[in-house]
Amino acid sequence: MKKNINIGLLGLGTVGSGVFKILNKRKGALKRLVEADLAIKKVAIKDMRELKDRNLVKIDKKLVTTNAMEIIKDPDIDIIVEVIGGREPARGFIKEAIKTGKHVVTANKEVLANFGEELFGLADSKGVDLYFEASVGGGIPIIAPLKRGLVANKISQVKGIVNGTTNYVLTRMYEDGCSFKTALKEAQREGFAERDASQDVEGNDAAAKIAILASIAFNARVTAKDVYKEGIGRVLPQDIIYADEMGYVIKLLALAREDKDGLDVRVHPAMIPLEHPLAGVDGVYNAIFVEGDSVGEVMFFGKGAGSLPAASAVVSDIVEVARNIQYERCGKIGCTCFEEKPVKKMDDIITSYYVLIQAADKSGVLAKISKAFGDAGVSLASVIQKRTWKDKAELVFETHPVKEHNLREAQKRIVKLDVVDSILNIIRVET
Amino acid sequence: MKKNINIGLLGLGTVGSGVFKILNKRKGALKRLVEADLAIKKVAIKDMRELKDRNLVKIDKKLVTTNAMEIIKDPDIDIIVEVIGGREPARGFIKEAIKTGKHVVTANKEVLANFGEELFGLADSKGVDLYFEASVGGGIPIIAPLKRGLVANKISQVKGIVNGTTNYVLTRMYEDGCSFKTALKEAQREGFAERDASQDVEGNDAAAKIAILASIAFNARVTAKDVYKEGIGRVLPQDIIYADEMGYVIKLLALAREDKDGLDVRVHPAMIPLEHPLAGVDGVYNAIFVEGDSVGEVMFFGKGAGSLPAASAVVSDIVEVARNIQYERCGKIGCTCFEEKPVKKMDDIITSYYVLIQAADKSGVLAKISKAFGDAGVSLASVIQKRTWKDKAELVFETHPVKEHNLREAQKRIVKLDVVDSILNIIRVET
Repeated sequence: MKKNINIGLLGLGTVGSGVFKILNKRKGALKRLVEADLAIKKVAIKDMRELKDRNLVKIDKKLVTTNAMEIIKDPDIDIIVEVIGGREPARGFIKEAIKTGKHVVTANKEVLANFGEELFGLADSKGVDLYFEASVGGGIPIIAPLKRGLVANKISQVKGIVNGTTNYVLTRMYEDGCSFKTALKEAQREGFAERDASQDVEGNDAAAKIAILASIAFNARVTAKDVYKEGIGRVLPQDIIYADEMGYVIKLLALAREDKDGLDVRVHPAMIPLEHPLAGVDGVYNAIFVEGDSVGEVMFFGKGAGSLPAASAVVSDIVEVARNIQYERCGKIGCTCFEEKPVKKMDDIITSYYVLIQAADKSGVLAKISKAFGDAGVSLASVIQKRTWKDKAELVFETHPVKEHNLREAQKRIVKLDVVDSILNIIRVET
Repeated sequence: MKKNINIGLLGLGTVGSGVFKILNKRKGALKRLVEADLAIKKVAIKDMRELKDRNLVKIDKKLVTTNAMEIIKDPDIDIIVEVIGGREPARGFIKEAIKTGKHVVTANKEVLANFGEELFGLADSKGVDLYFEASVGGGIPIIAPLKRGLVANKISQVKGIVNGTTNYVLTRMYEDGCSFKTALKEAQREGFAERDASQDVEGNDAAAKIAILASIAFNARVTAKDVYKEGIGRVLPQDIIYADEMGYVIKLLALAREDKDGLDVRVHPAMIPLEHPLAGVDGVYNAIFVEGDSVGEVMFFGKGAGSLPAASAVVSDIVEVARNIQYERCGKIGCTCFEEKPVKKMDDIITSYYVLIQAADKSGVLAKISKAFGDAGVSLASVIQKRTWKDKAELVFETHPVKEHNLREAQKRIVKLDVVDSILNIIRVET
């Protein structure tokens, strides 16, 4: 058994500084668990000037270097914690660390969702641990529960609200009745959205996360590029109002399902029933809902981002890896993507749809649009018609579950109708 | 590495038959994970006639014995799964199994909450695993997330809805406006409550569960007898209506908190704010809400009981133990009750209270009761007064947070007032 387990920290930003703080604050408690001191031996940052800019942590300058490879190659370091984020240089550092025989803990969803196969394969071949609890859901324990706690189950679906920024924006739109742009600006002012919020708003962040969750849930590699995505930029204030009238709330949903035809993995705004456990997940909170054949429905809820929540997950991984080191059990629970499974084309997915149409407010309009749906094989579940101004009306349709292909066919027919001005929005309804 | 890991199953009731089913159904998937066949080698039941009574599972009679000790002593068996429930003979079997060097997986909250110290001590000394994910929250992964996933945190509180029967009864009372007795009868008719539902209704089941959670969360042994408890039998239909008016819902809350004066561990009906994540947990669902210094608030939600949900948790433990056997790491993550911490007396706990009083409907009543509260050092947050019939009124008080001692003092003073008929109910308010 080791007396010291040495950590090399790559990155001292939001998550890195949180890890630094927790390892100091909880030193005694963690030592009790791993029977060794968990010490950060070296920290790599990009530029020494970063230290001046931030009051995040008080750190001994002698610990800090701008040469990450020096840390990776240091034979005294047992665990490399990568909290730089983004693709490069993070991916290269993780790869080098594994090659050098280091265990790696990372919060990097982007690297894992794009290069998971390469990195997990390398880790398995080198017999080292590659842990990533913080990559999805911030501090919420979800990776280990899915990988271990629910192992008795054949998982049929995982769906979640996994991006706090977009959830905050949609919650503001719901509560204040404001537009997407106004809500986003407020989120940026409040610090809940980055200045360039495109990764969040366009669904890239959520897509990487659902790729990771799907890979575990279905024992098959799903990469970020396999995930269909739509952002929240097109959600209109009236969509939110109509959703409410119909008993739904709009969330940016990350969803992964398996059926006999393959995997259905996507991120897009979706209407979910107000009584669904995910519907009440507001603001910066995240939740991941899992359905298994034995356990039924389970949900994991908490803060999906932030320095200390994410660091909480990183430190739990550090403790797991440290225990593995102590008991010589590293590299045992590796990649579980045993199978290859096809990801369905969007044309083949089946769901219900909300379709908001602006049309002339005159007799026969509803009949024409309904016929266009019917001719495309789309059956309607409900319709609301409202006069908006002068001779215009908004028509809100909810379809029964149907193949996306048929919906797109109906869309083509509807836009050609002379009574129709435009289809203002189409949002999938996930019950 | 073993090719076969043999399981001895003690009990073939609700949970046992679920374990049997899952191990058969998921044989291939589980083998892939543990690199060995997980086989039930023997099953102990109380009486062979049980086999005729039930259509639960198709089982080869040659596997079945009424002699549990035969299984426990069988040198070919690696893991004993105890799903008999109740104190004896379960406790004795677990003890013997550990003494014989067997690893044990149990769903038995009662044994763990009462004899945990003895059993975990024995397991640690013998270097065997004693796993118990199914003892709290049915299929919801909560033990491992609390023990491992949230290890970076100093936990300040754990509170949950951990008994499905009482939650179903309270949900019925809320939705149907019926009395406790009527709701309980319906729960029994629907199969959500046992014929003798006293263990659930009086809070014993929840008390055992919160004792287990508190022991892990605070690294200090809490036993079932340390837990203050009140059942739901005294909750009145009008309590539920007033709660709703005040923005609360009544749940049987199992709660464990730590502050500088010690632990506060209790089970009782409580009003919780409608916007709290626990408030929406209805029917037979369970949820456990945890607050940690780094992670903030997290919640775990799912079905708290039932054959397959509970068996899902048991099987996840079997897989963990089997992996430990394969990698020779058994007995490593044992008891984490490193400290001794005092459990507070109820007189010393601090919370808010709802107090429902029946009094004469005449002037000066409110002033007299308010003065009695004030004289006992209890400050009032709100009051509702309603005429009920003829010259009677119901007065609903909500206090600010105060020591329970002061509330009891106020209670004594109020019942002595000539204008007061009786205090109909007192319910703690947990925000």
